[in-house]
Amino acid sequence: MRTYRLALIGFGNVAQGFVQILQQRAQQLRTQHQADIQIVAVTSPSKGSLYHPQGIDPAVLLNAIEITGNFSAITADYTDWDTQRIIRESNANVILELSPTNLKTAQPALSYIETALQTGKHVITANKGPTALYYPQLKQLAQDNQVTLGIEGTVMSGTPSLMLAQTLRSAGITRIQGILNGTTNYMLTRMEAGLSYNEALTEAQERGYAETDPTGDVEGHDAVAKVVILANLLMDASINPNDVQREGITQITTHDIQTAQQAGKRYKLIGTLERQAKGRIRASVQPEQMDITHPLASVSDATNAITYSTQLMGDITLVGSGAGRIETGYALLTDLLKMPDYSKSDI
Amino acid sequence: MRTYRLALIGFGNVAQGFVQILQQRAQQLRTQHQADIQIVAVTSPSKGSLYHPQGIDPAVLLNAIEITGNFSAITADYTDWDTQRIIRESNANVILELSPTNLKTAQPALSYIETALQTGKHVITANKGPTALYYPQLKQLAQDNQVTLGIEGTVMSGTPSLMLAQTLRSAGITRIQGILNGTTNYMLTRMEAGLSYNEALTEAQERGYAETDPTGDVEGHDAVAKVVILANLLMDASINPNDVQREGITQITTHDIQTAQQAGKRYKLIGTLERQAKGRIRASVQPEQMDITHPLASVSDATNAITYSTQLMGDITLVGSGAGRIETGYALLTDLLKMPDYSKSDI
Repeated sequence: MRTYRLALIGFGNVAQGFVQILQQRAQQLRTQHQADIQIVAVTSPSKGSLYHPQGIDPAVLLNAIEITGNFSAITADYTDWDTQRIIRESNANVILELSPTNLKTAQPALSYIETALQTGKHVITANKGPTALYYPQLKQLAQDNQVTLGIEGTVMSGTPSLMLAQTLRSAGITRIQGILNGTTNYMLTRMEAGLSYNEALTEAQERGYAETDPTGDVEGHDAVAKVVILANLLMDASINPNDVQREGITQITTHDIQTAQQAGKRYKLIGTLERQAKGRIRASVQPEQMDITHPLASVSDATNAITYSTQLMGDITLVGSGAGRIETGYALLTDLLKMPDYSKSDI
Repeated sequence: MRTYRLALIGFGNVAQGFVQILQQRAQQLRTQHQADIQIVAVTSPSKGSLYHPQGIDPAVLLNAIEITGNFSAITADYTDWDTQRIIRESNANVILELSPTNLKTAQPALSYIETALQTGKHVITANKGPTALYYPQLKQLAQDNQVTLGIEGTVMSGTPSLMLAQTLRSAGITRIQGILNGTTNYMLTRMEAGLSYNEALTEAQERGYAETDPTGDVEGHDAVAKVVILANLLMDASINPNDVQREGITQITTHDIQTAQQAGKRYKLIGTLERQAKGRIRASVQPEQMDITHPLASVSDATNAITYSTQLMGDITLVGSGAGRIETGYALLTDLLKMPDYSKSDI
């Protein structure tokens, strides 16, 4: 049995989804994966701070949030430790960094991850801010401190796009193309059914896919962050969002989409990475008319997909969910379960 | 650096594809994967037997086959060892079992794999015979002897369908559906273009997809073997080919296919596994009319694909090549590289 003692930094949707999975599958994780997963600390700017070295019951956490919206009703040994102290001084051996995404400064997540790695804790994050802006540096910091940095949830939530790609590295990845943003793919699908751009956006907002300010999705910033993560993780690049040629879907009309359909094509917002001469990499996010015979063309609604073009295996495509509280929570679990087995009794 | 000393049992297309990859990528395997891969023995009923404890140059092997079709021109310490002796007594630590597939008795591959596992060698095979007929027993034998049994190449060649599924086990796999035979998918695609069944079969034979006797493909036996492998590996089942309801594509006419197309559907030969009440599993291979919105419906030509339906992640689909000498050779390489790191210096 391996014992994981987790500190959860942030307790929004993804953290709650993860805890819900733990609650439902604790027994299976013990028997099938020999994993004893304990939550020893949780901190959130709005909900409070808990540190209880013996572990906090997932059901108690979820129940408190449902009833009071915060941790005030939960008993714990320490309720006044700040996030940095929990990361540095608690008995957690894995830090789950789940604070809000900031694609400009990556803070405060960046400082949390740095502290965790520097003090010898493994880190798992679903946060695109630090991973898109500082992955090469953070990876180095993890290696220097002999710990791991799990980032599966940053690209296609729990659909294991990064794990698949790590396997395919030995086949020689020459190009990556992906539908990496569910909101825009949903809108483009609905526009094919005749909705205008504004109608499709309103519907996406009503379904909770798009935020009130949809800029991050429709202008391509979210997909750009994922392209950068893929480049730096899989193509040994060191690029940042400014290196990615970016065009959103705001200029696309229902007429454009229907004209494309009549020509046997579907508009998709495609993130592309392509190896070029002299080790250079071309990176872009832009609407493209994909021929319906391409595996990405058949991907509809909020589903995501990625095609790895390889030297030995040709094209390999993975299609699956790209967002959701349970789905992203599951990504954290897969990162946890694939950690190298440092010791049988205690990672 | 990890040192793998391989004995290749069989030297047909897949073995040659694998050796070709080694020849081209030896340097990359050393630097990126810290893998020093040596071929110490090769046996083939028609080409000869070689055992050279210091390793045989891949280029020399491929060159001899190209020029003479056998090993007679190659110098090796021992050229008279039979296959069982090589498996038992050579210095190989990994046996690549690549003899011809026999879906009735699994021999001679079965006895080779048993000897290898019993004498403490890791085994990697692309052979559907022993894996479809005896996987649970062989897996147990591997565990008893603390070695690994790699079978990635048996389902979708180097497209890592089994590795993906192993990751998704923790998401709760409830159903598996796949296009697991490239020959029949090619024929169905060509029949959509108007070819008759016989014209499509002839074309598949001319392209090398179908054998002179196409029964194994068109009657669904090949797909059944893969369904059995998936059931026993991923659903903790213990079924055999007779437990799979089977119907091939021989009764499907071009008219059927075109009628389906007009209704927005495509005929596919689908292998299905579904968990039912009381731990039972329903297993079938049969032609199905897939709605064009299903990810499997858009998979054309000889391409394979598999959809895992899971409790936590919904549907996840993997699309890629399902055959080929390099592709299946690559599957052997991925099995090799993912072996647990028993020792840093020598697996």
